[in-house]
Amino acid sequence: MTLDVGVIGVGMIGQDHIRRLTRVLSGARVVAVTDVDLDRARAVADDLPGGDGHGARLHESGQDLIADPAVDAVVVTSWGPTHEEYVLACIAAGKQVFCEKPLATTREACDRIVDAEVAAGRRLVTLGFMRRYDAQYRAMKATVTSGEIGLPLLMHAAHRNPSVPPHFTSDMIINDSTVHDIDVARWMFDDEIAAVTVLKPRVSSKAAAGFNDPLLVLLEMGSGVLVDVEASVNAGFAYDIRGEVVCEDGTVELSESAGPIVKRAGGYSGRVPADWRERFVLAFDTEFQAWVDAVTAGGTTGPSTWDGYAATVACDTGLAALRSGQREPVVLRERPDLYKPDHSREALSG
Amino acid sequence: MTLDVGVIGVGMIGQDHIRRLTRVLSGARVVAVTDVDLDRARAVADDLPGGDGHGARLHESGQDLIADPAVDAVVVTSWGPTHEEYVLACIAAGKQVFCEKPLATTREACDRIVDAEVAAGRRLVTLGFMRRYDAQYRAMKATVTSGEIGLPLLMHAAHRNPSVPPHFTSDMIINDSTVHDIDVARWMFDDEIAAVTVLKPRVSSKAAAGFNDPLLVLLEMGSGVLVDVEASVNAGFAYDIRGEVVCEDGTVELSESAGPIVKRAGGYSGRVPADWRERFVLAFDTEFQAWVDAVTAGGTTGPSTWDGYAATVACDTGLAALRSGQREPVVLRERPDLYKPDHSREALSG
Amino acid sequence: MTLDVGVIGVGMIGQDHIRRLTRVLSGARVVAVTDVDLDRARAVADDLPGGDGHGARLHESGQDLIADPAVDAVVVTSWGPTHEEYVLACIAAGKQVFCEKPLATTREACDRIVDAEVAAGRRLVTLGFMRRYDAQYRAMKATVTSGEIGLPLLMHAAHRNPSVPPHFTSDMIINDSTVHDIDVARWMFDDEIAAVTVLKPRVSSKAAAGFNDPLLVLLEMGSGVLVDVEASVNAGFAYDIRGEVVCEDGTVELSESAGPIVKRAGGYSGRVPADWRERFVLAFDTEFQAWVDAVTAGGTTGPSTWDGYAATVACDTGLAALRSGQREPVVLRERPDLYKPDHSREALSG
Amino acid sequence: MTLDVGVIGVGMIGQDHIRRLTRVLSGARVVAVTDVDLDRARAVADDLPGGDGHGARLHESGQDLIADPAVDAVVVTSWGPTHEEYVLACIAAGKQVFCEKPLATTREACDRIVDAEVAAGRRLVTLGFMRRYDAQYRAMKATVTSGEIGLPLLMHAAHRNPSVPPHFTSDMIINDSTVHDIDVARWMFDDEIAAVTVLKPRVSSKAAAGFNDPLLVLLEMGSGVLVDVEASVNAGFAYDIRGEVVCEDGTVELSESAGPIVKRAGGYSGRVPADWRERFVLAFDTEFQAWVDAVTAGGTTGPSTWDGYAATVACDTGLAALRSGQREPVVLRERPDLYKPDHSREALSG
Repeated sequence: MTLDVGVIGVGMIGQDHIRRLTRVLSGARVVAVTDVDLDRARAVADDLPGGDGHGARLHESGQDLIADPAVDAVVVTSWGPTHEEYVLACIAAGKQVFCEKPLATTREACDRIVDAEVAAGRRLVTLGFMRRYDAQYRAMKATVTSGEIGLPLLMHAAHRNPSVPPHFTSDMIINDSTVHDIDVARWMFDDEIAAVTVLKPRVSSKAAAGFNDPLLVLLEMGSGVLVDVEASVNAGFAYDIRGEVVCEDGTVELSESAGPIVKRAGGYSGRVPADWRERFVLAFDTEFQAWVDAVTAGGTTGPSTWDGYAATVACDTGLAALRSGQREPVVLRERPDLYKPDHSREALSG
Repeated sequence: MTLDVGVIGVGMIGQDHIRRLTRVLSGARVVAVTDVDLDRARAVADDLPGGDGHGARLHESGQDLIADPAVDAVVVTSWGPTHEEYVLACIAAGKQVFCEKPLATTREACDRIVDAEVAAGRRLVTLGFMRRYDAQYRAMKATVTSGEIGLPLLMHAAHRNPSVPPHFTSDMIINDSTVHDIDVARWMFDDEIAAVTVLKPRVSSKAAAGFNDPLLVLLEMGSGVLVDVEASVNAGFAYDIRGEVVCEDGTVELSESAGPIVKRAGGYSGRVPADWRERFVLAFDTEFQAWVDAVTAGGTTGPSTWDGYAATVACDTGLAALRSGQREPVVLRERPDLYKPDHSREALSG
Repeated sequence: MTLDVGVIGVGMIGQDHIRRLTRVLSGARVVAVTDVDLDRARAVADDLPGGDGHGARLHESGQDLIADPAVDAVVVTSWGPTHEEYVLACIAAGKQVFCEKPLATTREACDRIVDAEVAAGRRLVTLGFMRRYDAQYRAMKATVTSGEIGLPLLMHAAHRNPSVPPHFTSDMIINDSTVHDIDVARWMFDDEIAAVTVLKPRVSSKAAAGFNDPLLVLLEMGSGVLVDVEASVNAGFAYDIRGEVVCEDGTVELSESAGPIVKRAGGYSGRVPADWRERFVLAFDTEFQAWVDAVTAGGTTGPSTWDGYAATVACDTGLAALRSGQREPVVLRERPDLYKPDHSREALSG
Repeated sequence: MTLDVGVIGVGMIGQDHIRRLTRVLSGARVVAVTDVDLDRARAVADDLPGGDGHGARLHESGQDLIADPAVDAVVVTSWGPTHEEYVLACIAAGKQVFCEKPLATTREACDRIVDAEVAAGRRLVTLGFMRRYDAQYRAMKATVTSGEIGLPLLMHAAHRNPSVPPHFTSDMIINDSTVHDIDVARWMFDDEIAAVTVLKPRVSSKAAAGFNDPLLVLLEMGSGVLVDVEASVNAGFAYDIRGEVVCEDGTVELSESAGPIVKRAGGYSGRVPADWRERFVLAFDTEFQAWVDAVTAGGTTGPSTWDGYAATVACDTGLAALRSGQREPVVLRERPDLYKPDHSREALSG
């Protein structure tokens, strides 16, 4: 009845997912945790009710946690470079795993995960692309898919972070921010990205020395739909996620977040979200509840290993385009049957 | 070809209309002026090109100006209590007159003007209810009149002035502010006001001692449509004019004024007009051009003497309701044929 | 750890709350149900996992369910006239009860519940006024309470239902629709309603013969703040909930619900919610999770018996005002200490 | 006092400007007209009041009209390829000329006009880039220039025409539509365009065979500011002009045109302008009144020959980029002193 979940990595996002599984959602509980920092993991474990009300188990490694028979399914929220190892171990153990993006940090690692899951013969991996669960994005996709405004031709997007830590580089704009827009583009149009170009506008005085911020990332879809993404990580004013799909007979765009409008001092004003938590908290809740429900029912749902693979390859290509200043084609391996429409429809419509 | 206009009263609004006739609109020029303050009138006259490029004529009285054969038509922007005298003189002289509201300050004075114009047998008087020429109000009325959202049931309105001079009283909220909403209600629904009630919400700390601000004025139309008007004259933040007509199948409401949206510091914001000039400058231009064109063509247009009479009676009734705290019926004389639909359609649709 | 809940009344709203407790929220499960229609209750019970995975218990009466030692806390979603009996039984049993509005259908019944809870010496009753948990209303109240736009003077509200069943009367507009606005007004301003007036605009052609729809309900708060509520139950186009609080230095108003904006056929358009479920689903979830969490922690939260009492008295007064056509004062009993600010702050800020 | 204007070319736009000068604006009249179609010109001339009330003079050629001593200033609204000849003749005659875009159809022709005006030693030419007079664009530029949201980094723009005649080609998207965005970019940032790239998204099924529509035109400003322009000429739904300037500390974007909001059938909706007339009618009026006032006062104002030259060169470069698929640098001659900041400030801020 209740899904017993083990969590690998209890940093900020890991703890947020633990809170979600424990205090927000229905049908799941966290019974085991681990982290590269065992003290931190112990503190989190002790604070949890666990399966018997006496706290969650503490494991010394992700592998131990995955092997624990008390763990029904695994959430991977550790550091990106460790994802491959844990996801492969889950596949080997036949356990469903929810892995925060990226699936892995290299296309070769992604390849290995694809191979392993294909060999396993069934989907075990779900990627954390939460925008697919955001109500506005879903309504936008429904409008595009309905055909009521014709075929899509372009998409304009903006991904504005108010600020980033000093070590955040231009590469990370692509790998950590634009990766969400890459997934949105693939999902919105049920299509792969054919080529990437990265343009460098005037550099913000807030960008760290030597780095380009903002970027304008151009994604050419297989169908010819052109997606331009303004990616800014020092936008200062708010976490501002914009999107407009231009179709033959009309357009559909994200509205500002609904909050009360205040009038004073000569104007009217509304709120733009402060950060990704405020903007996407419900998308995270919805995504996780869908995963818990699907896994409990013996299946899976949402973005697949293939989605993680394709996003990683597109990001890699984006980095190449950032360096070359040229349009760079995106080269994907053949899509295994496991991820073909019949199988993957649930993922792309997730 | 060119309409030669004389202006009685060159205070703030008079000078604004002179600027409009001289520098903005087509087909008119100001050839004569007068004012209770002759020095002020002289300064304005000297500054005008006039008919021969040597300034406008200065008249010692409104009566002299009206009698001047060089004056084709008259604009009355003097102090309200003087309106009756000048409008009656214009009717007697058979000259078209544009009179800023109020038509006159008492219903008896309005009666006399109605009688005089009816005796003259043709419309000579146009009242300055400029909202009828505002693009948003016109589009709103077009929607209501089209019937596409059913019959109207209610209207919500707000009339917010940022501030008023210290001598501004609760009575003036009705006579100087709400009078515009009274005219809008009559025009929007092609109907008369049947009763007025005035409610006194909590008093703003900015209101002068002893006066009620804001007020909630309830207008019952002949058809039963109920109009509630929030009238605030110390709103502080802006000049904010709101309106929503609720019909059987939908509603239509004024949008915020279109200006760019600025995002910064955690929010998005747009401008609300600072004052009536910013909000209604185009309505004034349109209204005056329509009057110049109609008068040049030998006719008239826009709000009529009857509209001025009905507004004054409704304001009087509003004052009675403010004092009594009760619902007070509006009692109008019979509408003369001159102002009946066949004749007055142009006025009501003006 | 898990709150075992019994549900009395498994009609539409009861089943929705059961779904919420079972499939959406964390920390609760439904272990017992009953209904005036036992067959319906049985079907619901069989469909539930219950505490042991073998369905929820079926009770033949609400009294039996309340007495069941397996039931930790009770949800009352039966027909309004039965609320008093079940709420009193819960108080007698010392069990926390979540009661959908109304608390009871007469002020005398409400009085008895107040007396019983006061005698019990602690809060056991939570009323289902979910708007207090809506993100926009909460942000609006936060703005008003912050004082950043000065003291409140007026509130404009509209409560538009797309349609109602044929038997829905003018009385029900007040008891079933306006009751939410009554609670919002009390909560928004931390104040009681001093008087109610009900005005009858032109009747919609969609209203059932003999009934007044829409109504304009005027609530005078103790502080003098005046609240006007347009209550329409045949608005046709959507479920449209509007609100604007006018303060001395500005206003704050609910925005339209955030959804994508579609441009086509000469215009742009956005969605207005279809019904109360779409508009308030998150408020219901938030309200119920807060109740589950509070009850599990041994306390309570949210709207109190006093809030239910005051709302019922205000509705009664509204009915009197509808009949009399006059302003009717709201007369409340003295507020017991149990519900005084120190105690009830949590309720009013709930 | 009154500016006597001759109009060369009385097609759609020419007749609209004649209407404007005759019936809308103050201080000008049309005293002479000509057209390649003399019958059309005669009909227009006969319909005009002219200087003496007996119609405007009809000239057999633009050269005759320019030479007419009764003509104070000239408006050129003839076919683009004829602009050079008439503008040069005006310069030779020392008469102020308002020329609709383009200044000329080749950079060489533009060069000759620049040379002639520089030789004349004073500005005589005003280009019809009316967006500089649109209230929203002006407010947007004021915000950018104020520095209140930091230095500009990017601009997103969309220029959507509902439809075009069958002969409209991809080249015309650049020369006739994007030319306005090119001028806006130069004016908004007081900067020249350094390079142009043209991308070809998926082709709309409404585009004529063999042509690319929409286009995504990328303009790199001298400062590094990057401007992306979606140019669609078969957008179908409306004439939709969008713009957002992204600065270091915030953004500023054009809002939708203000018109009433209608709620019905499950949603709210507002109007998007049907065509350029509806969208920019006030900008045209303002532009022309500014020109009449400046010329009457013995000076000039607004976009200069240099602006026309730079726009033509940028369009030429855009066409090259459309053909090459590459980024193409924009190469301008040295800016003559006549158009340097001290002289041209009025133009760029026009």
